[in-house]
Amino acid sequence: MTDDLTSNPLADDKLREECGIFGIWGKPQASAFAALGLHALQHRGQEAAGIVTYDGEQFHIERREGLVGDIFSVGGPVENLVGAAAIGHVRYSTTGGSLRRNIQPFFADVADGGIAVAHNGNLTNAIALRQRLVRNGSIFYSTSDTECIVHLVATSPAGRIVDRLVDALKQVEGAYSLVALTRKKLIGVRDPLGVRPLVLGKLDGCFVLASETCALDIIDAEYVRDVKPGEMVVISDEGLQSYQPFPPQRPRFCVFEYIYFARPDSLIDGLSVYDVRKAIGAELAREAAVSADVVVPVPDSGVPAAIGYAEAARLPFELGIIRNHYVGRTFIEPADHIRHLGVKLKHNANRGQLKGKRVILVDDSIVRGTTSKKIIKMVRDAGAAEVHMRIASPPMTDSCFYGVDTPEKKNLLAANYTVDEMCRLIGADSLNFVSINGLYRAMRQQKRETATTRYCDACLTGDYPTPLTDRDGESQGQLSLLAQA
Amino acid sequence: MTDDLTSNPLADDKLREECGIFGIWGKPQASAFAALGLHALQHRGQEAAGIVTYDGEQFHIERREGLVGDIFSVGGPVENLVGAAAIGHVRYSTTGGSLRRNIQPFFADVADGGIAVAHNGNLTNAIALRQRLVRNGSIFYSTSDTECIVHLVATSPAGRIVDRLVDALKQVEGAYSLVALTRKKLIGVRDPLGVRPLVLGKLDGCFVLASETCALDIIDAEYVRDVKPGEMVVISDEGLQSYQPFPPQRPRFCVFEYIYFARPDSLIDGLSVYDVRKAIGAELAREAAVSADVVVPVPDSGVPAAIGYAEAARLPFELGIIRNHYVGRTFIEPADHIRHLGVKLKHNANRGQLKGKRVILVDDSIVRGTTSKKIIKMVRDAGAAEVHMRIASPPMTDSCFYGVDTPEKKNLLAANYTVDEMCRLIGADSLNFVSINGLYRAMRQQKRETATTRYCDACLTGDYPTPLTDRDGESQGQLSLLAQA
Amino acid sequence: MTDDLTSNPLADDKLREECGIFGIWGKPQASAFAALGLHALQHRGQEAAGIVTYDGEQFHIERREGLVGDIFSVGGPVENLVGAAAIGHVRYSTTGGSLRRNIQPFFADVADGGIAVAHNGNLTNAIALRQRLVRNGSIFYSTSDTECIVHLVATSPAGRIVDRLVDALKQVEGAYSLVALTRKKLIGVRDPLGVRPLVLGKLDGCFVLASETCALDIIDAEYVRDVKPGEMVVISDEGLQSYQPFPPQRPRFCVFEYIYFARPDSLIDGLSVYDVRKAIGAELAREAAVSADVVVPVPDSGVPAAIGYAEAARLPFELGIIRNHYVGRTFIEPADHIRHLGVKLKHNANRGQLKGKRVILVDDSIVRGTTSKKIIKMVRDAGAAEVHMRIASPPMTDSCFYGVDTPEKKNLLAANYTVDEMCRLIGADSLNFVSINGLYRAMRQQKRETATTRYCDACLTGDYPTPLTDRDGESQGQLSLLAQA
Amino acid sequence: MTDDLTSNPLADDKLREECGIFGIWGKPQASAFAALGLHALQHRGQEAAGIVTYDGEQFHIERREGLVGDIFSVGGPVENLVGAAAIGHVRYSTTGGSLRRNIQPFFADVADGGIAVAHNGNLTNAIALRQRLVRNGSIFYSTSDTECIVHLVATSPAGRIVDRLVDALKQVEGAYSLVALTRKKLIGVRDPLGVRPLVLGKLDGCFVLASETCALDIIDAEYVRDVKPGEMVVISDEGLQSYQPFPPQRPRFCVFEYIYFARPDSLIDGLSVYDVRKAIGAELAREAAVSADVVVPVPDSGVPAAIGYAEAARLPFELGIIRNHYVGRTFIEPADHIRHLGVKLKHNANRGQLKGKRVILVDDSIVRGTTSKKIIKMVRDAGAAEVHMRIASPPMTDSCFYGVDTPEKKNLLAANYTVDEMCRLIGADSLNFVSINGLYRAMRQQKRETATTRYCDACLTGDYPTPLTDRDGESQGQLSLLAQA
Repeated sequence: MTDDLTSNPLADDKLREECGIFGIWGKPQASAFAALGLHALQHRGQEAAGIVTYDGEQFHIERREGLVGDIFSVGGPVENLVGAAAIGHVRYSTTGGSLRRNIQPFFADVADGGIAVAHNGNLTNAIALRQRLVRNGSIFYSTSDTECIVHLVATSPAGRIVDRLVDALKQVEGAYSLVALTRKKLIGVRDPLGVRPLVLGKLDGCFVLASETCALDIIDAEYVRDVKPGEMVVISDEGLQSYQPFPPQRPRFCVFEYIYFARPDSLIDGLSVYDVRKAIGAELAREAAVSADVVVPVPDSGVPAAIGYAEAARLPFELGIIRNHYVGRTFIEPADHIRHLGVKLKHNANRGQLKGKRVILVDDSIVRGTTSKKIIKMVRDAGAAEVHMRIASPPMTDSCFYGVDTPEKKNLLAANYTVDEMCRLIGADSLNFVSINGLYRAMRQQKRETATTRYCDACLTGDYPTPLTDRDGESQGQLSLLAQA
Repeated sequence: MTDDLTSNPLADDKLREECGIFGIWGKPQASAFAALGLHALQHRGQEAAGIVTYDGEQFHIERREGLVGDIFSVGGPVENLVGAAAIGHVRYSTTGGSLRRNIQPFFADVADGGIAVAHNGNLTNAIALRQRLVRNGSIFYSTSDTECIVHLVATSPAGRIVDRLVDALKQVEGAYSLVALTRKKLIGVRDPLGVRPLVLGKLDGCFVLASETCALDIIDAEYVRDVKPGEMVVISDEGLQSYQPFPPQRPRFCVFEYIYFARPDSLIDGLSVYDVRKAIGAELAREAAVSADVVVPVPDSGVPAAIGYAEAARLPFELGIIRNHYVGRTFIEPADHIRHLGVKLKHNANRGQLKGKRVILVDDSIVRGTTSKKIIKMVRDAGAAEVHMRIASPPMTDSCFYGVDTPEKKNLLAANYTVDEMCRLIGADSLNFVSINGLYRAMRQQKRETATTRYCDACLTGDYPTPLTDRDGESQGQLSLLAQA
Repeated sequence: MTDDLTSNPLADDKLREECGIFGIWGKPQASAFAALGLHALQHRGQEAAGIVTYDGEQFHIERREGLVGDIFSVGGPVENLVGAAAIGHVRYSTTGGSLRRNIQPFFADVADGGIAVAHNGNLTNAIALRQRLVRNGSIFYSTSDTECIVHLVATSPAGRIVDRLVDALKQVEGAYSLVALTRKKLIGVRDPLGVRPLVLGKLDGCFVLASETCALDIIDAEYVRDVKPGEMVVISDEGLQSYQPFPPQRPRFCVFEYIYFARPDSLIDGLSVYDVRKAIGAELAREAAVSADVVVPVPDSGVPAAIGYAEAARLPFELGIIRNHYVGRTFIEPADHIRHLGVKLKHNANRGQLKGKRVILVDDSIVRGTTSKKIIKMVRDAGAAEVHMRIASPPMTDSCFYGVDTPEKKNLLAANYTVDEMCRLIGADSLNFVSINGLYRAMRQQKRETATTRYCDACLTGDYPTPLTDRDGESQGQLSLLAQA
Repeated sequence: MTDDLTSNPLADDKLREECGIFGIWGKPQASAFAALGLHALQHRGQEAAGIVTYDGEQFHIERREGLVGDIFSVGGPVENLVGAAAIGHVRYSTTGGSLRRNIQPFFADVADGGIAVAHNGNLTNAIALRQRLVRNGSIFYSTSDTECIVHLVATSPAGRIVDRLVDALKQVEGAYSLVALTRKKLIGVRDPLGVRPLVLGKLDGCFVLASETCALDIIDAEYVRDVKPGEMVVISDEGLQSYQPFPPQRPRFCVFEYIYFARPDSLIDGLSVYDVRKAIGAELAREAAVSADVVVPVPDSGVPAAIGYAEAARLPFELGIIRNHYVGRTFIEPADHIRHLGVKLKHNANRGQLKGKRVILVDDSIVRGTTSKKIIKMVRDAGAAEVHMRIASPPMTDSCFYGVDTPEKKNLLAANYTVDEMCRLIGADSLNFVSINGLYRAMRQQKRETATTRYCDACLTGDYPTPLTDRDGESQGQLSLLAQA
């Protein structure tokens, strides 16, 4: 395991959610609401954003790299995105795929009119589908799996555009929550397993779709309910209709949405994300108690679990590490300076709270372990007497193929080392992960049982709920012969 | 006919050629040669340019708005366009179609590999083709007719990519010279009528294709021959093969390439463009002699004809109008200033050569007549005693549908007025156009005969050499529902 | 008091620190260290940043609007900023003064060589000085008070550049911490009152100057000591020399650096900022106890005081408000939507922690009161049973003239209303500010005494430690006749 | 003499005029007129442009790199340049001095108000003045000699701003035509020798100043007269006043304005530039007759002289070389290609007019000789039987210090070789320059006499009309210690 020698703050040791989606129907200036909703979903993707609107005659599109607030602020392109219907997308791209032409939503003129699609998730048979579509004459303009869905819609023999979309989705495997916009409808769908979230809200009588409830809050929309796994909601001027086009399946919602991805003020499937995280911290305190002076979160994601831990352990909670929220890009590491400043771009020790103390550090997860090692060193350099690391998730042993950018298994620390070995590698005095059953208890389940779990925890258990056609398939070749200039 | 009240220098009264194309095979740093070639073809399109290269593994593309010298200069994207094969395109877009996504070349991953296409001309059944393709599931990303060709290639049942291209071209009507690049071949084709030019050259043993010979000259390539109407040349590492995939037809090369579009130093079909223009001027002098003191060209396009006229008429040739070559965009017309400064952004009277003189003004054509009127006024204001306008083309009475941006017939001066009326409208003392037979004589023909003419002169005669399916078809609907944001 | 009707997140109700400064001498790639240091000081100014380096022959400068991480990242201009000596500046501009030409550091070629200056603070006789300088022929290129210092240096009759700087500073009134760079020296100075902070550090034997210790931490520099009020440190290849060029005065360090401006992990004058803030919270808990269920900070600035309050009051501390750290610019407020979404761009209620609870909200200060009102409404809308507002500073009754962007007195809530009135205006069930003596106790003083206080608390007391020449002077006229185009 | 191996079209072998200036008073939307005027003067400087306006309360400025038509077109900054008074400047910078901060006009707030200055010419004692000013405390922000004038105005003990300007100009040596704008006046001045042009015009009763008459023509302003050498015209709401603040001197107008710099449609000192150029061609035909088939200009600057030559020699005039007016930047020269394509970016042989012919090539001047060599080779490669080079100026043997970018003497071909040697070096069959007396005759003088010549022809004769203080002075040191980042 080699160290990370750059000071790229984006190179911290976190998973990356790939997308957030939003849709609204029947509301004048729909793009302004979409921009606000996407701003609230920005934590799900910071690389690029896009909005498509329909004004009754034409669709309008804007897709750019950057933050929502930079792209869609006053005076910007949002003013040209006219119309009372909109869908939007924020995106974090996987390595190597940060092509501008991959920015969503995608749009196509199909026989029946236009359709725009924005997608959160990942298809596990996208390459196989793409090969078949290209053989039949479809021309792909991106390397995104989402474009498969659009071509399946375009080439579907079905008549109405909704039927074409169902026809398309029946051919795909994997995880998807998606919103689609046609001239007459706003459509929201979750895959049969419901791996990714999607909620339904209402604003002044108009329906809203969003990845998380925090995107409803920002526009003062009322939360109605979660879209159900396998459900398709079709919103038009006639109101909302709900369909169940797929055979019923046991749902498998992603546990990492609770652990790390979702915003703490969001409510998923009736549970407060903040509460679940605090409960994980409390479970950890019970499972892995240790004599200490202070509980310190690795901010920001470790904060709720640390509050829960401190409360359960009756220890003081202190901000022993301060986070710098001004995002830097990759700074130059001065050549004679091999101290790996990277971590310090985001975090600094708050010495007064660490010096001479036995510190319990709480973080949400360990992926490669690089950041943990640096943070523990920083805390020790600040004078901590002991450093006990507590992780608010079970060990991550497997890659995700459902829309999260995970390293390959060989780069996951927990896939290659025992907890004792990891403890030594990161330099802690002790290291504990919450148990898988502790995690389930925090989610108000009794324990995990493979046969009945309603969550996707494949990254923690290797129990993948869908086929992985592309991963298990033949060598895949190049997605496109066209390189990015 | 209303006057043009803006000072947009692009609003001068000229036709717009829509494209120039270039290709080269087997030459390291092919993109640098393509950039030079496109620079020499810049007069064929100043709005945008693009280059695609193939490096043996991947294609590379760059397409942008702007001049070739700004896009592809040292330090710019040309340095990423690696490979020994390249095609390129310069473009002038028709009104309303200046979408960024219309910039060529187009690229597609098709079953057999990748293909890039650059096209000069215009298809007259593009809308009909598009409607059929969309019905079958093709997704269009531009509003360009050229994309039809790409989809026809992608969906062709033929096997090899060359056969697919032939299959595609057999379905299209209209005018096209095109270059295409695949992983193994550079292909050049002219439509069966050969409306648009395409020449073949050789540089250090490597084949080069270009719209005009001036693009060979700039890279010191040797002119080999014109690609023949209806010919497809397929260039690979094995050399060049010539095919004639279409049924033979009488060729119909565009007369306006001689009159205005082509660069005077280009050689088309064995004739020097400069010589033809001088010869037209000489014909005019014979057909429309007038007693005068000086022959003055409307620069730059009127210069060769004016030299020919002056020589034939034995009158002095003088630069009585000076052209400002620094292109301005649209300047603000000060509000209290209604003198229509527009024309002065490009032209200024050279008073010393005009004052008190009987002036013969020579221009290449009259389209709407707006510029002629202003120039004649400017020449009179400078003190000319008489102004005799001589036009080096017959009256333009019909629109072009073969890749030239012509106004609708109702806006063509000569379609609505007699020569006498036009003379009064533009304010000249006399006005003459060269006769159609005079034009043919200048091109070394005896005269024009409808049954045998080898030129397309539809804009002068209304004699269109192909069906005009889209023009004559049903209401065409919207090309795309997606507006440009 | 009118409401803020925009959704500009920058319009939150906070004071703005105007600057952070940094300097380093003798360290190759000095600009890379300066960029890191400025990144750590980004909270002191987010509008623009600049760095000047000296390479032994020439100075190099880069000043731009934007965040440090965007301006000085790898591949950017930092790579041209060569040399082993650097100074830098981050800036927040006052309203109307966001001219690009005001971005620091300033540079001048003076008789003795070049000098660059970066300044944190504000001169209170800048306009008077400027008028005198202009009368004598100095040409100002900015509207910044800092430029006065540069012109005073340039026109000083003194010989050496250090003497010129002392000469200049003896003529100015107000607050300044500044760093200056000449060909042979790095100079740091604090005004005689030491209103603004400046610390001295050491990295591998090289001296470093910075506004706060967090800028030393990020580059792993060791904290040496605070530069003393009225001290000038002159750093050269011969080491550091300390001067006391001004008559001794009782120091008056800004209390708001402790309350709000400085980063919690910084150490100022031996005191941890985080500790002071926690201690203020504890004082508040003692001074203004109330029966409640939960202590909730207004994030981020209210967090340490809330932790201190909760600890002292033995109440649970919860993140009842979640902050969105992705900064948006001004979003469009949809026209039919008069709910003042502004506050929600940054803050959202975490309902689960608020519903049905008696909530103690802790914030650092109230300026205009606009944000407090919206936040309290948001907390009530989320179901809070009671909302008790506790403010970790005494009421702000007066404007600051020492480098902080404060509203005019007429717009300060506490200057116009009693605490009871304010409570009603912001809609709280109770409102308490920490007492001035409580604040002093948190800073380890017994209490405040006007005659001996070593702090500037003019914004809380009206006790200004310097003359306010410009404020009290004649009408000031226009700083420059040149408007920004 | 080494060859030029780049394909930078700007590296052609021409002198560069450094500036054009324009001013207008009392005309609403003055900036729109200034933009048009500068567009007409674009040939005098293509690197950058600027406009300053005054609206009765404030000055407004915009200065940018680029062409006038790109900077000041509709929708651009020209719309913010409000006011009825404006001055403007176009600029070509000397090598190494293309600093953005050198772009004119310069502006200063001085005791009496604001003043903006735009300058065409070059001061020959600028460095000496600058050193004195810096010693006295002036801070320079550019490396331009023009800034000296501004500082001399600011520090002048005189009272009124006009008197300060006169005071300043009495201290400078060299060549200048300048326009200045204050709150109450538009001022135009030519240096006592009148080296650079400046004309006065009138538009609807408002006065206009411009470098050349073509800038009056474009806005339909009437030419009134040339500003006289040593004259200062002061234009205000009260009308125009003329001053002669300098002791009378024999004027010395730049001959190269006639030969190359000015636009052919401009009138200078009563003479048509076009007529002078034709007359030089006729002189050449008489002085250097040769048996030939065709006269071919090197376009565009050689055209009028070639017309004059052809007319006098009774030979056909033909465009044997075609110029590409689309300016490219520096294209990449493919590595295996050592043919020096550079010249072809601008010029191409028109083979039909050259093949087998004895060609007389007419160009305006030879500076380094690099382009002549390439053009002659190109003409020979096109099949010319003989190439006779005729140059419409005497041999250039000395550098210009009056505002023209000339190579150092050691790089001037004619300073180092005899005409015969030059003929061999450029590869011509014969080479002739017009004689100095021939040039004077073309300007309607009998002949040149050192004691009485009213022209500056120092570049042809070494007879400099002013001291060259900086050139002859001590080592000059660095103009600024601040490098461009």
